[in-house]
Amino acid sequence: MQNFHFYAPTDVTFGKDTHHQVGAIVKKYGYSKIMLHYGGGSIKKNGIYDAVMKSLSDAGIEVIDFGGAEPNPKLSLVEKGAKICKEEGIELVLAVGGGSAIDSAKEIAVGAKYDGSTWDFSSKIKEPTDALPVGVILTLSASGSEMSASAVITNEENGLKRGYNSEFHRPLFAICNPELTYTVDRFQTGCGIVDIMMHTLERYFSKSPDTPLTDALAEALLKQVVAAGTEAIMDPENYEARANLMWASSLSHNDLTGCGRNVLLTCHQLEHELSGKYDFVAHGAGLSIIFPAWAEYVYKHNLDRFTQYAKEVWDIPENEDDPEEAAIHGIVATKAFFAEIGMPTRLSQLGIGDEAFEEMAEKCTNYGKRILPGNLPLGKQEIIDIFKLAL
Amino acid sequence: MQNFHFYAPTDVTFGKDTHHQVGAIVKKYGYSKIMLHYGGGSIKKNGIYDAVMKSLSDAGIEVIDFGGAEPNPKLSLVEKGAKICKEEGIELVLAVGGGSAIDSAKEIAVGAKYDGSTWDFSSKIKEPTDALPVGVILTLSASGSEMSASAVITNEENGLKRGYNSEFHRPLFAICNPELTYTVDRFQTGCGIVDIMMHTLERYFSKSPDTPLTDALAEALLKQVVAAGTEAIMDPENYEARANLMWASSLSHNDLTGCGRNVLLTCHQLEHELSGKYDFVAHGAGLSIIFPAWAEYVYKHNLDRFTQYAKEVWDIPENEDDPEEAAIHGIVATKAFFAEIGMPTRLSQLGIGDEAFEEMAEKCTNYGKRILPGNLPLGKQEIIDIFKLAL
Repeated sequence: MQNFHFYAPTDVTFGKDTHHQVGAIVKKYGYSKIMLHYGGGSIKKNGIYDAVMKSLSDAGIEVIDFGGAEPNPKLSLVEKGAKICKEEGIELVLAVGGGSAIDSAKEIAVGAKYDGSTWDFSSKIKEPTDALPVGVILTLSASGSEMSASAVITNEENGLKRGYNSEFHRPLFAICNPELTYTVDRFQTGCGIVDIMMHTLERYFSKSPDTPLTDALAEALLKQVVAAGTEAIMDPENYEARANLMWASSLSHNDLTGCGRNVLLTCHQLEHELSGKYDFVAHGAGLSIIFPAWAEYVYKHNLDRFTQYAKEVWDIPENEDDPEEAAIHGIVATKAFFAEIGMPTRLSQLGIGDEAFEEMAEKCTNYGKRILPGNLPLGKQEIIDIFKLAL
Repeated sequence: MQNFHFYAPTDVTFGKDTHHQVGAIVKKYGYSKIMLHYGGGSIKKNGIYDAVMKSLSDAGIEVIDFGGAEPNPKLSLVEKGAKICKEEGIELVLAVGGGSAIDSAKEIAVGAKYDGSTWDFSSKIKEPTDALPVGVILTLSASGSEMSASAVITNEENGLKRGYNSEFHRPLFAICNPELTYTVDRFQTGCGIVDIMMHTLERYFSKSPDTPLTDALAEALLKQVVAAGTEAIMDPENYEARANLMWASSLSHNDLTGCGRNVLLTCHQLEHELSGKYDFVAHGAGLSIIFPAWAEYVYKHNLDRFTQYAKEVWDIPENEDDPEEAAIHGIVATKAFFAEIGMPTRLSQLGIGDEAFEEMAEKCTNYGKRILPGNLPLGKQEIIDIFKLAL
């Protein structure tokens, strides 16, 4: 087991009706002027916006309204938000939404305490040294951003989509009401399920021996996401399914399922090239295409782990006569599950061909300057080969 | 799933050699004068004390040395420590040890910011409103106090042993080096294994439906503690076994395995009467005696859960012809495991008879004023009956 650091200090308030507590929670932490950041406005249609504003108003919190966060959140909006925070003396950024609104809010909070562009951090030239606190009201079970240290931003100028980790990215509090996800449609629910699973799978398949406790927790979480995910897709207003999915989303990316292990996020990096290039590709849909191709490409180099995955998560026993059989069946089972919940598993389903593979592989390897580490390290050619398998 | 609050903000630094980082960590948090609190002095014999003092000294931290924490930590020592903190202007209390030193340090930290006796908090007359921060260097995998919100103190004047929860009890940081537990003897290792399992079992057996994710994480943790515990008993310097046990200790009591569930701590309350009355009873040994008796007494009132426990943790299949068989075998398997790792499972093994059952049951029910809740609520007579089953 590798040495590790575990620090997930987000104050989570979980359950029915909890979003009405937001005013009291902001007040408890001593803040009186906040920015409310959210996406395209669906929260205005479904009543969440009004409920949140009422709770904040009842607690005497002054609110600067700043919506407009998009999927694959954009640097230009972050910079605009950070400027407003500085001008208005904002004390906390409250994200209402899923990963896009949260990541955008995290980056606004960092930008509010920095004089340059936050792309300095995304491109890893600098590390942030200060930030405003971030609060979250979660409306989508997917990114785990509500408890994670990461934020992913897309720079429209150079077309790069980059994530980075910082302790300043850990939200101060997260309010998680599974009822707020009842209206999430089948496709977005599916995207969320894939994203949740991938946060754990990326940790699970790294090359780090002797972590049976972390592995068992990861396997338990994955099985439960498959079960709850299947139920939530069939029955969108099933509270228990939505609740287990929402809590799994937080646990899958707060580092619990990676303690003592490397975290490589290889599939995420490949996917970031995909949705960075094709803005219409939802992150979860990109992952449901990339993972099976990546797994098919690398499994022989991590056979024991893929065999364990098949056994523990999919109840596929090892075949002593064919040591690769279980591993392959485990990958096939994952792909079949993704398809079953309505996710694409091939690029061609999204109308994407091989036209940009070179470009995406160039960007992913920082123009040949880096190799993605792993049991099978991936350079430009290997990345292109994986994209080809995903066609 | 019940609504819940999850807040485990302790900054955990885990792994080999990590205790040498304590000076840098204290300094990072901006503290320059601390109290070092520990037990009977074993840390002076095995070199931990010197290493810690060197690290603190190198970082320029002023240290007030205050040892003497005993098993079942005492109120009188807490009051003495709190007085010193006030007089000396201590900024942080650093516990080096296991649950006793940590709980004692937590209570000193609360007492340092309170004018009365901290027994006001233990007896639940008042709630703390302030405390010094607490840091931990863990030398025993057992109590989970390094990440928990609880502290248990014994009042020598009235013979009561009482725990209470407070957010002020969450340590600011915990340094967890499994190597420091190599010298923990077989008996204390066994006590720790039982204590770790019980923190999860107390949550697992409460009456709270629809928490499959929390349950699966609990079952995974329990299985891994059985595996790592068995290894650590056989091979005390097995790093991986000690590491998995140590991390399980933190996760088992930081609330993860109880999210969405009631936490009753019934067996802990019965055990506190036992070790409160008989100071020679180690907490883990008390629990290994109480749990099988309690389980035997209540299992019929929570049969499905005991059947699930048997299946998921001990691989004991359900027998459709005898619906109680698996549940009973699960309890027997637990008891056999406790015995296998050298723990007592009957009071008579410790030379304890029924002489104080009345008194202990009186105290446990606050002299008839309360009933312990659960699937089968326990009043004075039921508690006596459980003690009898444990003879």
